[in-house]
Amino acid sequence: MRNIKLVIEYDGTDYCGWQVQPNGITVQQCINDALGKIEGSNVSVTGAGRTDSGVHARGQTANFFTQSRIPAEKYRDALNSLLPETIRIVSSTNAPENFNARFSAKRKTYKYRIRNSAVASALTCRYEYHCPGRIDIELMKRACAYYVGEHDFNAFMASGSAVKDTVRTVFDAHLDVYMPEIVFSVTGNGFLYKMVRFMVGTLLDIGKGKYEPEYIMMLLEPSNNLKAVSAAPAKGLTLESIEYESSGNGAI
Amino acid sequence: MRNIKLVIEYDGTDYCGWQVQPNGITVQQCINDALGKIEGSNVSVTGAGRTDSGVHARGQTANFFTQSRIPAEKYRDALNSLLPETIRIVSSTNAPENFNARFSAKRKTYKYRIRNSAVASALTCRYEYHCPGRIDIELMKRACAYYVGEHDFNAFMASGSAVKDTVRTVFDAHLDVYMPEIVFSVTGNGFLYKMVRFMVGTLLDIGKGKYEPEYIMMLLEPSNNLKAVSAAPAKGLTLESIEYESSGNGAI
Repeated sequence: MRNIKLVIEYDGTDYCGWQVQPNGITVQQCINDALGKIEGSNVSVTGAGRTDSGVHARGQTANFFTQSRIPAEKYRDALNSLLPETIRIVSSTNAPENFNARFSAKRKTYKYRIRNSAVASALTCRYEYHCPGRIDIELMKRACAYYVGEHDFNAFMASGSAVKDTVRTVFDAHLDVYMPEIVFSVTGNGFLYKMVRFMVGTLLDIGKGKYEPEYIMMLLEPSNNLKAVSAAPAKGLTLESIEYESSGNGAI
Repeated sequence: MRNIKLVIEYDGTDYCGWQVQPNGITVQQCINDALGKIEGSNVSVTGAGRTDSGVHARGQTANFFTQSRIPAEKYRDALNSLLPETIRIVSSTNAPENFNARFSAKRKTYKYRIRNSAVASALTCRYEYHCPGRIDIELMKRACAYYVGEHDFNAFMASGSAVKDTVRTVFDAHLDVYMPEIVFSVTGNGFLYKMVRFMVGTLLDIGKGKYEPEYIMMLLEPSNNLKAVSAAPAKGLTLESIEYESSGNGAI
């Protein structure tokens, strides 16, 4: 059995998220269906991140096993010829046998795009959250720093998740400002259900003066039993990239 | 009667072009309908450029007359609250009585986006033409220069147009290259039916080695009776801006 790694870009607008579900078309389902046609049997790809409905990806990563003799790099064009144009396989390569797109992942990077202008853009509205009015960007930049480090992010997890261990490490969190566009980038070893959207919603509340930047420290202190209340909408979020170890231990 | 000028951005993907037509939803129709609700009577806006189905705009310009006492700048938000999110009024301002968005226009700028990569992008496929394979960009840059000036662009006009005077002046035509994206920008005093798309299609044929750059000179010589044969698809094209004279004679 060979193990094939896929890097995938998609526009999440018209999909019910990544993961296969009984009702609604998902990105994983589309890829499974296309692979099934190529392989002549049922295949299920494993994805690194289970993005929600409306969330986009530039570097989602997945893997699957095959007994075929099709060269790894041929899967890219074969899949693209069968997939809708809003899902593209960026690359398909051989991976070590023990590579698992989900469990071998070391770092994930998400970006969240905000448009801070009076009028939304007709051309980019699928990919950004329109947030008019005064926002204090310096306060938001200061607030970002409080996210960095190993913390219990339970306050930033949406209810409905079965996850028990809510400690995650955020390696980097910062804002890039290209007015009227503001881009929040965050890299971590993993993210809880809707965590990035709650991080952004809280940042925007800080930018609007609802909280001080230091409020993030309070949210990250488990004994305070606080919950973030504002989740930014899905459409501004993009899974940018997944990083794996460059050698050894099932990573590539 | 007051004359109101609108600057309009739209994603043309889901519209049958700008101009009202019996079958299919058009951008002009959407704006007329929204204005009709505000005014309480039928209104028809005059647009500067009649973009085709699938063509986008960042700076389409239109005007309409009103007897209402609504301040000009209030139309922006009032219209945006009624329009689909893929059509946005960027600004609404008072214009001189003799301003006509179409006939007062002095210069129009279009941009055409090409993606020269093996795989198309899922995230930008609505706004660019995916053109894989080797393209000689230096040849295309050289070719652009031949478009500049006053020429008979009859060879670049699609059949089906009733226009008789096919002489137009191109003030600027150039390529900006941000690989894998290539952007063709062209500014002129007016454009014939599908003219920009034939200009781009011809440039790409030159980039692929089908013609020499000098072939454009031959197309522009009416006595040769030649016609450009390749029109690039609509979705890569955006009407970027319309310029008017800054003073006098019906312009603003």
